Amino acid sequence: MSLRSKLEDVAKMAGVSTATVSRCLNEPGKVTNKTRERVMNAVDALGYTPHFGAKALASRKTRTVGAVIPTMDNAIFARGLQAFQEALAAAGVTLLVSSSGYDAEQEADQIRVLVMRGAEGVLLIGTARLAKAYEFLARSKTPYVIAWALSDRESPCVGFDNMGAAKAMAERVLALGHRDIAMISGITAMNDRAASRVEGVRAALVQGGLDPDRLSVEEVHYAFDAAGKAFERLMVREVPPTAIICGNDVLGVGAISAAKRRGLRVPEDISITGFDDIDIAAHVEPGLTTVHVPHERMGAGAAAALLALIEGETPQATVCIETRIVERGSLGPPRVGA
Amino acid sequence: MSLRSKLEDVAKMAGVSTATVSRCLNEPGKVTNKTRERVMNAVDALGYTPHFGAKALASRKTRTVGAVIPTMDNAIFARGLQAFQEALAAAGVTLLVSSSGYDAEQEADQIRVLVMRGAEGVLLIGTARLAKAYEFLARSKTPYVIAWALSDRESPCVGFDNMGAAKAMAERVLALGHRDIAMISGITAMNDRAASRVEGVRAALVQGGLDPDRLSVEEVHYAFDAAGKAFERLMVREVPPTAIICGNDVLGVGAISAAKRRGLRVPEDISITGFDDIDIAAHVEPGLTTVHVPHERMGAGAAAALLALIEGETPQATVCIETRIVERGSLGPPRVGA
Repeated sequence: MSLRSKLEDVAKMAGVSTATVSRCLNEPGKVTNKTRERVMNAVDALGYTPHFGAKALASRKTRTVGAVIPTMDNAIFARGLQAFQEALAAAGVTLLVSSSGYDAEQEADQIRVLVMRGAEGVLLIGTARLAKAYEFLARSKTPYVIAWALSDRESPCVGFDNMGAAKAMAERVLALGHRDIAMISGITAMNDRAASRVEGVRAALVQGGLDPDRLSVEEVHYAFDAAGKAFERLMVREVPPTAIICGNDVLGVGAISAAKRRGLRVPEDISITGFDDIDIAAHVEPGLTTVHVPHERMGAGAAAALLALIEGETPQATVCIETRIVERGSLGPPRVGA
Repeated sequence: MSLRSKLEDVAKMAGVSTATVSRCLNEPGKVTNKTRERVMNAVDALGYTPHFGAKALASRKTRTVGAVIPTMDNAIFARGLQAFQEALAAAGVTLLVSSSGYDAEQEADQIRVLVMRGAEGVLLIGTARLAKAYEFLARSKTPYVIAWALSDRESPCVGFDNMGAAKAMAERVLALGHRDIAMISGITAMNDRAASRVEGVRAALVQGGLDPDRLSVEEVHYAFDAAGKAFERLMVREVPPTAIICGNDVLGVGAISAAKRRGLRVPEDISITGFDDIDIAAHVEPGLTTVHVPHERMGAGAAAALLALIEGETPQATVCIETRIVERGSLGPPRVGA
């Protein structure tokens, strides 16, 4: 199908002129929200790739790369992104970042904006996203790399085994004698990293001969206060847990603070673990036992892979960064008689 | 001067053809680093504004706005930026962010990249930056808003009084009876916020009849470990301080951890204060007494001002967001006999 006929198809489907479609794509501020939405729906439905018909995007050398991250808060992605940016800068490439607020629709929009603003390639976090985002990447021939998770997609990934790391942490908890284990997890919908970590804990329970359905999981946004409230809900259950495995360090630190407010000693009365090893994990009391993710190595590796893709090379499909457990003091054996 | 002759001037000064200048500006990846540097130096020297000659940038409606922040680490800017982004999103505008690593050259480059990639306006942090960055903004007629500080520039600012807030904190420290006061500050060069906070503490000392030159100031990068080392250096001085005023919460938390490692009680043996009131300030032990900055209000206000500027309106020149001190426990009177 020629570029021309496609533009006409979009116009026809949206019930507007081809000039309006062009204006909508190039100067969206000049059309009404309603028209823009109608045109963009037609663009999505017909798989029309504005601007990219004549010339593959990869041949445009803007020296700009994009990244869409779920949040800028709590430094969860900051350290890895910093290393990613430094490696790009060494190659003379500037990074533009967009943050989606863990919203899949917003992520898809932001990927499109970054590419239409000239990003030669994009860094994406994890694998769970809307099909239309992947379709847009394919249509626009935009190189992309997935980080923070392992992926079986064709495009390369530089990540780590979220499930395996969470399983290893749960195994350590079980080995200390805990049987009443709960989890405070991030929202798992459209977050493969969060979902894999829950899966990893369940797998450890099964392996230990325990019923994985007995695992209480509280799903909350990655926020200190939300973790505190989830902690409260877990502790008023008929059989309160003796150990809480948290989906990340923000949740772990929030849980430690909530335990103290309740007058509970960590780990004597309740064990708490985290995931990520962000700076704060070492500065709370007790220090948070957590999964250390080598964020710098991941960010630098992702940059190398993306730069190679942009140059038309074929980097290694999957780079798995090894994680390890860092013991700090928030995990101990259950209280005798608990 | 016509656009044409300017392009020729740049080519002449750089000793290349006008075609090379164009390629350099539009497809920088296709010229060598050396050529690009020569051309960009000529562009800077001659004040040539690529692309923007015929048509003011403000008339391009890309529905994209840029922000250059000093760092994505430690959530110092995350909360304000999140509010900024949400207010933009409500107006159908996408935010692209670049982080300069507190490097003024990099900031100037990133402003240029954002504008050349279509940003209709930019958010900047504080006032201290290279003249060429301000010149580029003026030449390209790019609307910008300054946040996190007050500014006497023509473009509007939505910020707070860094000096006044730090002075208020120092006054409180003095009122408790402390006389041997030190400061762990961020690097003040090209960081007006850090410099103003030091100035505020000195002003309080002068007002209290103390010699401001007796204030020991350790300037370090905003990192937990750097603060810990600065703390060590301060405590081995002939007259160690009884109170340390930190330039932000990352430094404050790092200092609290260092105090504990040294076996010192906070605040009984040493008082420590912060600035910003990021989440972590409430989760360390003792909680960090700090300056609360209403980041959400600042971010939302900055978005409103920038959107107004882009629409050709004239927003209020200076919006000063009130800060307040949050008492948490890390600040107390000096030990008797100390």
